[in-house]
Amino acid sequence: MKEGYIKYDELLSYTTKILQKLGYPKAQAEVTAWILAEADARGVPSHGVGRLEFYESNIKSGFNFPNAEPEIVHETPLSLVVDGHHGVGPYVAEFTMARVVEKARSAGAGFGAVRNSNHFGMAALWAEMAAAQGFIGMSFCNTRICSIVTFGRDRILGTNPICFAIPSAGKTHFILDMATTTVAHGKVEVYERHDKPMPTGWVVDEKGADTTDIHGFQKIYREKRTGGHLFLGGAGEELGGHKGYGLGLFVDILCAGMSMG
Amino acid sequence: MKEGYIKYDELLSYTTKILQKLGYPKAQAEVTAWILAEADARGVPSHGVGRLEFYESNIKSGFNFPNAEPEIVHETPLSLVVDGHHGVGPYVAEFTMARVVEKARSAGAGFGAVRNSNHFGMAALWAEMAAAQGFIGMSFCNTRICSIVTFGRDRILGTNPICFAIPSAGKTHFILDMATTTVAHGKVEVYERHDKPMPTGWVVDEKGADTTDIHGFQKIYREKRTGGHLFLGGAGEELGGHKGYGLGLFVDILCAGMSMG
Repeated sequence: MKEGYIKYDELLSYTTKILQKLGYPKAQAEVTAWILAEADARGVPSHGVGRLEFYESNIKSGFNFPNAEPEIVHETPLSLVVDGHHGVGPYVAEFTMARVVEKARSAGAGFGAVRNSNHFGMAALWAEMAAAQGFIGMSFCNTRICSIVTFGRDRILGTNPICFAIPSAGKTHFILDMATTTVAHGKVEVYERHDKPMPTGWVVDEKGADTTDIHGFQKIYREKRTGGHLFLGGAGEELGGHKGYGLGLFVDILCAGMSMG
Repeated sequence: MKEGYIKYDELLSYTTKILQKLGYPKAQAEVTAWILAEADARGVPSHGVGRLEFYESNIKSGFNFPNAEPEIVHETPLSLVVDGHHGVGPYVAEFTMARVVEKARSAGAGFGAVRNSNHFGMAALWAEMAAAQGFIGMSFCNTRICSIVTFGRDRILGTNPICFAIPSAGKTHFILDMATTTVAHGKVEVYERHDKPMPTGWVVDEKGADTTDIHGFQKIYREKRTGGHLFLGGAGEELGGHKGYGLGLFVDILCAGMSMG
């Protein structure tokens, strides 16, 4: 694999053009290109332009309607519920968070929940919109099903990221943006490419047992519904796997409950 | 060790009396007895009446002024900052959370921060006060210094618990109440009493290296300032120790920043 450097602005405009070719309207293409370029610029390639194929497949499969406009379906002085109508995730997220920050400015706090949307990229970008305006920001998202519960075997939850952003007086805010699983699936894919056994504590096999076998795991991960990612703290309770599971479940219930309005 | 059962109400009134003998006014004694009895009733003896000695030592050492009344030092329609004046932790917590819930009812959301207070018992009890009234509740607390940062050696953070409570239509709410370290120190003490080696991933020794040696660890824990608890995910980054550290640090910054008002 050859590595090279590309200027941020060039990557941004080039990615915008690709997304427009894929059928994204200009505004949707711009915010999506921004979140992808931003991820690469921050050294998070798992959420960068390398995922363009994923965005393309979401359109081709009809999972995503790039032209859909988000709609506010419930609103109070402090909160709103948005229906994304299966539009572009980052576009819906920016739409919602901009209004959450406005509400925080006028009412003291703001809360937004989104239904019928999809992958919004790095969670940090949305919580940071609040921190950039001097507010403590939080963002949560449920994801594609890939992980098991403590002592489980079937995949029933996602990587369910949480993000907290606390503004500081200086240029650098405190930002924590993490999957509640031990690792995101992108890390497993890296080990697969390198034919490397995984550390114990990342995943379990179809019987719910610890496994380090990268190719065996990827096979069941692609073909079956059992075996999957462990939450932070690993299998069982000894190293606190139930805590990571609790965090992931919290995100799931929060997202489900709030987006129902 | 002999085990027995005691009725909840008897434990509550007996504990109240003991706390009054120790110098707590009636109201302070009642809320503290309640949080201790409640912990035992829920099967969390690490936060139950077994800790009465700790409460006694806090008074005798002058760390705690049982008669001190909390004072609101800053207030907005949505928030308040309380100075606990080193009074009784659970009393200050209840004082604050009752007002946070009132604010949530009138303004849509409520936030409280407390300075100059101390151990408030199980974090769950305070977030639950919100959930009991139909609100999503969160509680966070920094604690006695006992844990190290990822790749660290010196103790510089606490177990820094986080709690999220989401109300449900049924009788049982979703409650997550967890130290952000792999285990709380009480678990180490249990292993000490049983002469049992700890699992790798709980603590590191004075050099910052993984250790399972329970007596060796307890010795340095009592006598030195290096070696300490690992955050959820254990040592290093391989199993996500940096994520647990991030959660613990979030609590620390949040508590420090908010309590400054």
